[in-house]
Amino acid sequence: MSTAEHPRRADAVRNRHLALKATKTLLAQPGTTITVEAIARQAGLGAATIVRAFGTKDALIDAAVADLLEPLIQRAHQAAAEPDPAAALRRFLLELIDFQAVHWIVSEQLTRLPVPLTSARRAELRKALVDLLHRAREAGGIRTDIDPDVTTVMLGEAAYAIARSSDASPDLAASFVTVMMDGLHPRS
Amino acid sequence: MSTAEHPRRADAVRNRHLALKATKTLLAQPGTTITVEAIARQAGLGAATIVRAFGTKDALIDAAVADLLEPLIQRAHQAAAEPDPAAALRRFLLELIDFQAVHWIVSEQLTRLPVPLTSARRAELRKALVDLLHRAREAGGIRTDIDPDVTTVMLGEAAYAIARSSDASPDLAASFVTVMMDGLHPRS
Repeated sequence: MSTAEHPRRADAVRNRHLALKATKTLLAQPGTTITVEAIARQAGLGAATIVRAFGTKDALIDAAVADLLEPLIQRAHQAAAEPDPAAALRRFLLELIDFQAVHWIVSEQLTRLPVPLTSARRAELRKALVDLLHRAREAGGIRTDIDPDVTTVMLGEAAYAIARSSDASPDLAASFVTVMMDGLHPRS
Repeated sequence: MSTAEHPRRADAVRNRHLALKATKTLLAQPGTTITVEAIARQAGLGAATIVRAFGTKDALIDAAVADLLEPLIQRAHQAAAEPDPAAALRRFLLELIDFQAVHWIVSEQLTRLPVPLTSARRAELRKALVDLLHRAREAGGIRTDIDPDVTTVMLGEAAYAIARSSDASPDLAASFVTVMMDGLHPRS
């Protein structure tokens, strides 16, 4: 039995991987309606295989979005380790807005679904940003009279609003990050 | 005929006024489902009278939200006339966030409706904020290297995001306005 099971387990891992990759590709195409059929077509798998691998389309989307957040969390950790964490924070905010600009439609849809994996990753991302702010404070790069937790909410909410703005101009994200970082600069 | 018409016209004006007032009261109660029946009950009028006065519930909500924006527009105009327009801008932003914190659920619902009156008032509010920013620049109260139109979009989008944040703490709005205003301060 066990020799027959192994190839099947390897197939299941491969199918999960292909389904996740296909979902992430579709998530990066704004305006795409994500259906099991569209994912199956993109992955080169059958719809039944997709359902067998993930149970529901929502569970698959949850896993895919959680995967997408992983590199952002890594970037926030890397930024905290840089010698000038305030400069790294500025770059991180621009990356965050770029990411949200591509993915905000998905985020809106997720508010109506149970997304345990995505929620856990969002909490990690928030914690990584709080850590980055603490590091930037310690390094003298940002002001110390505003609580890092409050600053994290402020940056997260405002960056998301800027990213999804229907009035987005090439200047908007850059101006926003400039005003925020100058506003966070230590007071003389 | 004309003597019989006049009281009827006066009634129509009064009913429109009562229906608008009732709708504004309901809009200020977050979580209320606004139905013609609820408006009629609040106004002390019959549902048929409400429909006769406004045509549709959506038209009535549009008129009510447009009315609610009027005092904000006036405040922005007053702020632009103050001797320290940057300080007036700070106060205006706090008022704007207070207003949005009460009314953001309505704003979300309006995105799916045609709201010509509200759209026109929003354009007026935006114009008043652009004027206020120009005045603050001229008075030396804010930096001149960021376009007032871009700044208006940035402030409007970010303030709205802060106002509707599920993580709103007593500090959040105050910290946001402090960071924004310090970030907009003229560079030395």
